[in-house]
Amino acid sequence: MDLEKTKNRFYETIFEADTRKGKLFDEVLMVLIVLSILVVIFGSVNSINQKIGLFLRILEWVITVLFTIEYATRIWVSPNPFRYIFSFYGLIDLLALLPNYLGIFLPGAQNLIVIRGLRVMRIFRILKLSRYTSAGRIILNALWNSREKITVFIIFVIILAVIIGTFMFLIEGPESGFKDIPTSIYWAIVTLTTVGYGDLSPTTHFGQMLSSFVMILGYSILAVPTGIVTANIIGKHHSNTQVCSKCMYDKHDDDALYCKRCGTSLEVKKNITR
Amino acid sequence: MDLEKTKNRFYETIFEADTRKGKLFDEVLMVLIVLSILVVIFGSVNSINQKIGLFLRILEWVITVLFTIEYATRIWVSPNPFRYIFSFYGLIDLLALLPNYLGIFLPGAQNLIVIRGLRVMRIFRILKLSRYTSAGRIILNALWNSREKITVFIIFVIILAVIIGTFMFLIEGPESGFKDIPTSIYWAIVTLTTVGYGDLSPTTHFGQMLSSFVMILGYSILAVPTGIVTANIIGKHHSNTQVCSKCMYDKHDDDALYCKRCGTSLEVKKNITR
Amino acid sequence: MDLEKTKNRFYETIFEADTRKGKLFDEVLMVLIVLSILVVIFGSVNSINQKIGLFLRILEWVITVLFTIEYATRIWVSPNPFRYIFSFYGLIDLLALLPNYLGIFLPGAQNLIVIRGLRVMRIFRILKLSRYTSAGRIILNALWNSREKITVFIIFVIILAVIIGTFMFLIEGPESGFKDIPTSIYWAIVTLTTVGYGDLSPTTHFGQMLSSFVMILGYSILAVPTGIVTANIIGKHHSNTQVCSKCMYDKHDDDALYCKRCGTSLEVKKNITR
Amino acid sequence: MDLEKTKNRFYETIFEADTRKGKLFDEVLMVLIVLSILVVIFGSVNSINQKIGLFLRILEWVITVLFTIEYATRIWVSPNPFRYIFSFYGLIDLLALLPNYLGIFLPGAQNLIVIRGLRVMRIFRILKLSRYTSAGRIILNALWNSREKITVFIIFVIILAVIIGTFMFLIEGPESGFKDIPTSIYWAIVTLTTVGYGDLSPTTHFGQMLSSFVMILGYSILAVPTGIVTANIIGKHHSNTQVCSKCMYDKHDDDALYCKRCGTSLEVKKNITR
Repeated sequence: MDLEKTKNRFYETIFEADTRKGKLFDEVLMVLIVLSILVVIFGSVNSINQKIGLFLRILEWVITVLFTIEYATRIWVSPNPFRYIFSFYGLIDLLALLPNYLGIFLPGAQNLIVIRGLRVMRIFRILKLSRYTSAGRIILNALWNSREKITVFIIFVIILAVIIGTFMFLIEGPESGFKDIPTSIYWAIVTLTTVGYGDLSPTTHFGQMLSSFVMILGYSILAVPTGIVTANIIGKHHSNTQVCSKCMYDKHDDDALYCKRCGTSLEVKKNITR
Repeated sequence: MDLEKTKNRFYETIFEADTRKGKLFDEVLMVLIVLSILVVIFGSVNSINQKIGLFLRILEWVITVLFTIEYATRIWVSPNPFRYIFSFYGLIDLLALLPNYLGIFLPGAQNLIVIRGLRVMRIFRILKLSRYTSAGRIILNALWNSREKITVFIIFVIILAVIIGTFMFLIEGPESGFKDIPTSIYWAIVTLTTVGYGDLSPTTHFGQMLSSFVMILGYSILAVPTGIVTANIIGKHHSNTQVCSKCMYDKHDDDALYCKRCGTSLEVKKNITR
Repeated sequence: MDLEKTKNRFYETIFEADTRKGKLFDEVLMVLIVLSILVVIFGSVNSINQKIGLFLRILEWVITVLFTIEYATRIWVSPNPFRYIFSFYGLIDLLALLPNYLGIFLPGAQNLIVIRGLRVMRIFRILKLSRYTSAGRIILNALWNSREKITVFIIFVIILAVIIGTFMFLIEGPESGFKDIPTSIYWAIVTLTTVGYGDLSPTTHFGQMLSSFVMILGYSILAVPTGIVTANIIGKHHSNTQVCSKCMYDKHDDDALYCKRCGTSLEVKKNITR
Repeated sequence: MDLEKTKNRFYETIFEADTRKGKLFDEVLMVLIVLSILVVIFGSVNSINQKIGLFLRILEWVITVLFTIEYATRIWVSPNPFRYIFSFYGLIDLLALLPNYLGIFLPGAQNLIVIRGLRVMRIFRILKLSRYTSAGRIILNALWNSREKITVFIIFVIILAVIIGTFMFLIEGPESGFKDIPTSIYWAIVTLTTVGYGDLSPTTHFGQMLSSFVMILGYSILAVPTGIVTANIIGKHHSNTQVCSKCMYDKHDDDALYCKRCGTSLEVKKNITR
């Protein structure tokens, strides 16, 4: 019973942020998260690594141990441990720990890259930050609500890139930088997204004409995701395709129950369309 | 009559997707479509082509034959064959077959490129995918409803590019990379669409000033397609230029029948404007 | 009186497009406009100029003469010649003629560039095209209504570019590509507008940090023109800063006369704010 | 008392712009501001500095003195000097003066850069311009209202850039241009913002695949700030997550008090959510 009390107090401190202790805990956690990422980043710079490499490795282990304790406590105090473990953040918390420990059992110079590869996941830890931002939800919602449309859009862009890339490969020919279709598709995506590295660029007049066309067209097409997300943030779509049975008016809001022009109920048609 | 039954069953399976068989058929088809495109793409990579080139060519013919059978069946089972043949997807289905067969009758090394050129159309087959995505319609609608405005917009951009390109040609002169007006127009489009390859970039101070101006101005102008598409997705425009005869209010929704400010009917004016 | 008839008939044909003759006239005119521009463009390509340079020069003069006749007729038939001459299109029509004629009185090799410079204006002739597209008006309106905001926005961007450019000049130093502040400002604009030629790019770690910051921030700031134009196309702003005197509600539509929350008239406050 | 009169007259002239004198004063001030910036900019160009360097330095001091007088007067005439001094523009006015004066007490060749660095702040003076543009407020409001969301968004982009950058570093390896994680993060930001300098670009096939993915995904994600700002300019959001207790309708405007579908009051739920 006294243990329960402790668990509850811990629970409040770790999982909630409305007590003074809870706030403090979260702030400390955030600092550690950012710190652990900076360690990874600066550890990759040779000049820095030569100077304070050892210090960074130690710091890394200290943070890892702290996070391990935190992870264990979270499991211990949560009323339903498994629900936490398999929750989104539960998995991220685990992913953030694994790399270092796996690094022990996979030693050897040739595995260094692999270890670094695992270590990368450490960065997922920062995703925890989103847990503390309430405003982030609006953006995530906007993106989440648009997921279907954006997926379709991305498929469209890829198809477009495949077609354009192949044509470009045929125009510029394998002698130019466009040495094969995958490379040309890469170029098409670089162009359609208006990134334009310039590592590949058309040299023939006809190639320049095609890519000019691609840019202008692509620009109009790429206006779509902006439109989708904007529409979601504004919270107004026009996906309602009902037509009023009386006045044939067809621009009803998605939440319309009656024709806003002649007042006829749209229910019947709705049942039909369902 | 029994034949009719078979035809109908086939029709349901091939043209519709709400039966179990229909779903399966479509899924198999999608796999084949993607496969056929991967063949074209990877077939262009030398390293891959040297290893499994023969296998790819065989795979390609297998798929082509399968698609031919599918095409024939579609024609056979469709109640009105000609309407299918000359429908959008009917033509795409045909375009997807032609290249390989034409490849037979146009042999010879010097035609290889041409054949590849025809083979490209194979990629149009993927456009079938859009048939299976319902969400895609919203995007296509948004683009289709904006087609008029976007066309005008594209014309504007081209005119702008022609003017800017010519000026740039005069400023940087034929000695620089801007060797003639077409090249300069290509540069103008690359800049206006914010792609910016950097294969051509102004070197003179005055040239840099002009292009800075172009970028900023262009950026504002290129906000237009986004606006158009967004407006279409939201389903709200303000193209209505009516003025209320009573209160002279002039910001009526496109679907307004009565002045939302003083209730005067807008019909009369509408008839006039018509 | 019979002359009047002819004038009127001419007027209808030239200035209006609703008669059959009028349509034909406009179509011919459009072809000539496009043709005259193609002449300028292809005339600049050496390879083409060497082959059919003479033909192009002749063609150019033929078109110029035709446009001169057209210009004279427009003046003759317009009820109020001066209003036409000093109208937008009147001036453009004139600008489209001048270059060639000025080309005569300014001979000499050393003036060739100048002549070409004047000849450029010939391209303004294409702006006539906009006269024939009705949909173009919506875009122009959207841009025209946003002119004030976009101007302010452009000033903002320029200020931003000046500040960023100067800082960049101090960070990268005159030894790098950022040899003076104007060049650095040019770089800042190239970056802010996401064009990114890459002719100049930061080499120092600190320079890369600053430009990363510039890109992300700039990206958010440059969302503004899109927002402005979109708002104009949708025809909905929220520039109304009135506060209801009764319920203190402050999110009124621009065209609101009564508080949509408590029905209190906003008139009085309006008079005050005026 | 007579002094008071002078102060008031001065106050009207300097702080307000509705008297004739006030307008003139502001116009002169704006000219000086722009002039002082041009001095800094052109002073950095060697070719110019060699010719008229001395003249520029003198001009600079003249302007600085004039601004000092202005600053002193502003303090003198303002009814509450401290409120002016610590106001936004008060601080900018000071920042605009400091550099030159600090330049005196920090002499020596090795400090030249530093002095220039301080001199840069001179440019902040131009920010005064915004005081004179009323339309600027709409843009600033749109950005200011979006500050929360944009901040979150920027954090997201940075996290994304860190993750992507690290992966890219592991794929392309330290032998390529991606020599360490900070450089790779810089590349990720350059790519995500579609700037694409091309100073770094993937060379391996897998690297090109990842960056293609980054570009397309990034493009969709970067649609968010545009959406946010647009929503703010239109003045319409959908952050209201209330659900009507009666009809369960959940798409209420942010300023809704009653369910627009069934008229049930939303107050109670509001109190709960608060």
